[in-house]
Amino acid sequence: MSTVAVGPIPDVEALRRWLDGEHREIRELVREQLVSMDLSQADGISREEYRELCLRWATELGKSGRTALGFPRRYGGEGNVAASIASFETLGHGDLSLLVKVGVQFGLFGGAILQLGTERHHEQYLRGVIDVSIPGCFAMSESAHGSDVQNVHTTATYDAQTREFVVHTPHDGAHKEWIGNAAAHGRQAVVFAQLLTPDAEESHGVHAVVVPIRDEDGTPMPGVRIEDCGDKMGLQGVDNGRLWFDQVRVPREALLDRFASVSEDGIYSSPIENPDRRFFTMLGTLVQGRVSVGGAAISVSKNALSIAVRHAERRRQFTAPSGEEILLLDYRTHQRRLLPLLARTYALHAAQEQLVVALDRAFGADDVGDLARRELEAHAAGLKALSSWHATATVQACREACGGLGYLTENRFASLKGDSEIFTTFEGDNTVLLQLVGKSLLTGYRHQFGDLDPLGMVGFVAGQALTEVLEKTAVRQIAQTLVDRVVPGRDDDDRELDRAEQLGLLRYRSERVLASVARRLKRGIDEGHEQFEVFRACQDHVLAAARAYIESVIGEAFALRVSRCEDPVLRAHLERLCDLHLLCTIEDDRAWFLEHGRLSPSRSKTITRAVNRLLNEVRGDAGAFVDAFAIPDQVLRAPIGLKDQQGRVSGP
Amino acid sequence: MSTVAVGPIPDVEALRRWLDGEHREIRELVREQLVSMDLSQADGISREEYRELCLRWATELGKSGRTALGFPRRYGGEGNVAASIASFETLGHGDLSLLVKVGVQFGLFGGAILQLGTERHHEQYLRGVIDVSIPGCFAMSESAHGSDVQNVHTTATYDAQTREFVVHTPHDGAHKEWIGNAAAHGRQAVVFAQLLTPDAEESHGVHAVVVPIRDEDGTPMPGVRIEDCGDKMGLQGVDNGRLWFDQVRVPREALLDRFASVSEDGIYSSPIENPDRRFFTMLGTLVQGRVSVGGAAISVSKNALSIAVRHAERRRQFTAPSGEEILLLDYRTHQRRLLPLLARTYALHAAQEQLVVALDRAFGADDVGDLARRELEAHAAGLKALSSWHATATVQACREACGGLGYLTENRFASLKGDSEIFTTFEGDNTVLLQLVGKSLLTGYRHQFGDLDPLGMVGFVAGQALTEVLEKTAVRQIAQTLVDRVVPGRDDDDRELDRAEQLGLLRYRSERVLASVARRLKRGIDEGHEQFEVFRACQDHVLAAARAYIESVIGEAFALRVSRCEDPVLRAHLERLCDLHLLCTIEDDRAWFLEHGRLSPSRSKTITRAVNRLLNEVRGDAGAFVDAFAIPDQVLRAPIGLKDQQGRVSGP
Repeated sequence: MSTVAVGPIPDVEALRRWLDGEHREIRELVREQLVSMDLSQADGISREEYRELCLRWATELGKSGRTALGFPRRYGGEGNVAASIASFETLGHGDLSLLVKVGVQFGLFGGAILQLGTERHHEQYLRGVIDVSIPGCFAMSESAHGSDVQNVHTTATYDAQTREFVVHTPHDGAHKEWIGNAAAHGRQAVVFAQLLTPDAEESHGVHAVVVPIRDEDGTPMPGVRIEDCGDKMGLQGVDNGRLWFDQVRVPREALLDRFASVSEDGIYSSPIENPDRRFFTMLGTLVQGRVSVGGAAISVSKNALSIAVRHAERRRQFTAPSGEEILLLDYRTHQRRLLPLLARTYALHAAQEQLVVALDRAFGADDVGDLARRELEAHAAGLKALSSWHATATVQACREACGGLGYLTENRFASLKGDSEIFTTFEGDNTVLLQLVGKSLLTGYRHQFGDLDPLGMVGFVAGQALTEVLEKTAVRQIAQTLVDRVVPGRDDDDRELDRAEQLGLLRYRSERVLASVARRLKRGIDEGHEQFEVFRACQDHVLAAARAYIESVIGEAFALRVSRCEDPVLRAHLERLCDLHLLCTIEDDRAWFLEHGRLSPSRSKTITRAVNRLLNEVRGDAGAFVDAFAIPDQVLRAPIGLKDQQGRVSGP
Repeated sequence: MSTVAVGPIPDVEALRRWLDGEHREIRELVREQLVSMDLSQADGISREEYRELCLRWATELGKSGRTALGFPRRYGGEGNVAASIASFETLGHGDLSLLVKVGVQFGLFGGAILQLGTERHHEQYLRGVIDVSIPGCFAMSESAHGSDVQNVHTTATYDAQTREFVVHTPHDGAHKEWIGNAAAHGRQAVVFAQLLTPDAEESHGVHAVVVPIRDEDGTPMPGVRIEDCGDKMGLQGVDNGRLWFDQVRVPREALLDRFASVSEDGIYSSPIENPDRRFFTMLGTLVQGRVSVGGAAISVSKNALSIAVRHAERRRQFTAPSGEEILLLDYRTHQRRLLPLLARTYALHAAQEQLVVALDRAFGADDVGDLARRELEAHAAGLKALSSWHATATVQACREACGGLGYLTENRFASLKGDSEIFTTFEGDNTVLLQLVGKSLLTGYRHQFGDLDPLGMVGFVAGQALTEVLEKTAVRQIAQTLVDRVVPGRDDDDRELDRAEQLGLLRYRSERVLASVARRLKRGIDEGHEQFEVFRACQDHVLAAARAYIESVIGEAFALRVSRCEDPVLRAHLERLCDLHLLCTIEDDRAWFLEHGRLSPSRSKTITRAVNRLLNEVRGDAGAFVDAFAIPDQVLRAPIGLKDQQGRVSGP
């Protein structure tokens, strides 16, 4: 049975429930909590006051239990990672300094203790993490090694005589940089350092050690130097700082020893032989941070769109011959600016939800399996990159679409921009993350986790029919489900609106770009060039493969989610939004499809026409689509973007 | 004789002189002045202090004479518009609040008095404009009419009995909005209002009247209500405000009467019959504002690139097999991020210079001619739009390319972003401006200024061979010069690097898109649709035509400017940068060229390869290209972007 979307969306509440999904209750609770917190307290206060306010807010949240959902029950949590992320995503509609403060304390610091530590550490720290009586830091990045964290220079050297680790910053470029909670509030820090033991000449690689950085009075511990990062473009309520360690001694038990331990007499052991694999296992357990940031970025986009779409439905400019002035959203250019971003926000929402389910399943499983874990990590990295870039683009487009009013601080774009700006950089620079995705795709075929060399697989690929190799990628499996479910009843002539056709194009691009970069890498090696140089020369091609893959994942997640909507009327409206997203994605890269013979010039133009037609249709749903984000007016706070607008009135 | 660029640019000073061009001396003076002003005074001060600082700085500049260059000699100027804009552009490297304050006082307020007023007004105000003893406002935009300024609702009604104009805000949406200098410092305002006289029932259209808004003590005049716009995303040193007029009376002489006057007994007269034409003539004389903003936006891009390129030449991340860590700028993705923006900044610089020459010529001429004036206005509007969008994109890309360091306030991206953000909106919203360009292109053929109806020309176009019509556009004329001058000595097989070929593609696109939109408009009318609706449905197509046209103008200006470089070695390096710009422009829109049969799929891929090759080559010149922007370290002020870096050192 198929229904065609006619008229406006009749039931915005149903759409809201569909969006909220499984974790509706926690989302509602966090929305209420945000309303009750009075976010306007942060307006116009000093940096120091703002930092204190964020600590106070975080402590309140800690007490409410909403930030502990991901921790084990015995420490006050619910062991529910998915709910924990839903809570974090919802917080992303509010004050982003608070969000990051929460992310640092509960996600990074608490997450490292939980996932890299063992029971001893859990007992010692988790209650204090949860009630914020132990504010903590996650000290990984260094000044000279921000992205290349496998090569940080801080050392933790085991001294078998005193049974201590000596944590040390060997030169100025090795100081810990950008550490949240460090400048003002942190008491403990999980410090990532090269682990050195007497039984080995070389480092065992990067390991995490808990180091006290301040005493009860807030005075830095002996040997610890702390500096404030100073003013930032946004997130002024987060106390980012720098840390230097001068031969700081901590007991042997300070090593978070889930994946590696050092015996009393200094013998190193780990269940994971390969040091690369060990490092990435440790990083991998922190994948939750990337998933959280990606989700928060989607929330930021929802805020921006709520403001800009509502404004465009009220603001009129230039007079039609009828004498009536025209709503901004009735202009084609305005629709082009906002509605594809709206559709994409829904698509990312669906992909994020799918990712959270996979993450939750991985946390619940005894052994996820390397392939599933690698896929999860790749999706987390890729989605974080595309969601945060999307937030940057959306905030920008929405500000411009609101003109001068968008430039006033009261209308929130200043904060949305300044605060979310760094999402594209932290928890992994987006470019570096996409490179990880690309490498993962290239090595993924081998079903082996140990060998991270992205070129090791080239011979392997070349030795098989490429299609056979590509069959093994997850994309194809997901897609098949959708082809089976494809929306029936469409006009067969209307290829542009054929779901299998749309997804097929995205899937084809993903597979083809990957195969082509693999061939280029092989050719480079065959011609005798150094592997590293070959990879560098193909870098943008690897990124294109990663991006195409993630776009395909996003498109399929959205289509699948929409196909499962049980209300046929609502589904019809969502199908149209999904059409808009998929066709815009294809239109954006139609050059590639033309170059590779998948679109003829005339069909390429047809797609642009279809997008324009869809824009006209989706325009009528735009208000409902943003209302369903359900951001309370007291949280959105932009006078021009309120649902119930009682603010400034324009016009005669 | 042709030279191929080999090795680095040998003489950065020569490149700098080439960039500085004719107004080198004034640029040098303003740079020195910016250094001597100590821009760091603005750091960390309150909004009120910042506003006072900007007034003080503007007054200092006024005294130095550098901001008066465009005014007539008898009032202390030099009657040199081009030098005045060169001065303004250079100020754009420094504090942007100061820049906007200067723009409001000297450009908008002073410019309106100079260009819309007559000798009486010049005598009365210009000395006070120049020495800032009369701080003034340019009160055009209204709350409900920001873009559609031809329909502002403020009225100026002539009262023949008292020989006064009564200036009035008829409803709240008609208050003047975003008026610079209004919230704190302005004494006088040039107010744009519907002019009503007893001899006519309808308004004579928008005219400008000088209205005192504060007395000597700074108290608002009777009947004038002033409100502060409040906090903004940036430009906190500019006192933007709102103005309401309650039956405020000013003498008959307050009308700026160059283009229209009202006799003592209330008879209206104007040398320009058509009210539309009259309005656009008044706006047209203010085209200088758009040229100035466009130029300043290019300066902002230069600041951002100076910081990001220098950082990318110092910052290393990830280790090559050689053991050496790799400079960011040696990564293909990093080159892709920064170098096309660098090339485009040079291209815009050249186009801006060409525009300023045309503007200067127009100011010097007794009668410019309607066609030349319309072209000038279109170029000013289009270049302002593309330069300001370029600044937004460049600041964003450069911030991201500097990672976390780019997020620190001290590295300047926060200010560059927040302050320049509004450039895409003020002095005409970019989308509206591109629409003006499109309409101008469509009507331009007719060589008639009177009829602004963009659809009036459709029958005209249809009645002629399109190519013949297109022959008349200025693009073709400029292009021919370049085809004649085309760089000799290139390998004939290398079509991608053939200048005539590159420019030919851009020109073809410009003409073809314009012809196609004209056909669509005609078809819509022929089918009986309402003209207004047809135009609205084609709006994005009109914008595409405008954009394609301006891109062609920019490309040709750059190519021409480079071809005139007399130093063959330097020219070779610049030719390569020009290749990069033109090929990136084509690559960006290669879908269009593929759709319209101007690129084959294989040639399209060749262009991408050629861009990658050029990136590798231009990378060696990148440092010299930014050094030649010659922004003094004391003005650039970003520790990571200084030429002589003595700041933070990273690495062992």
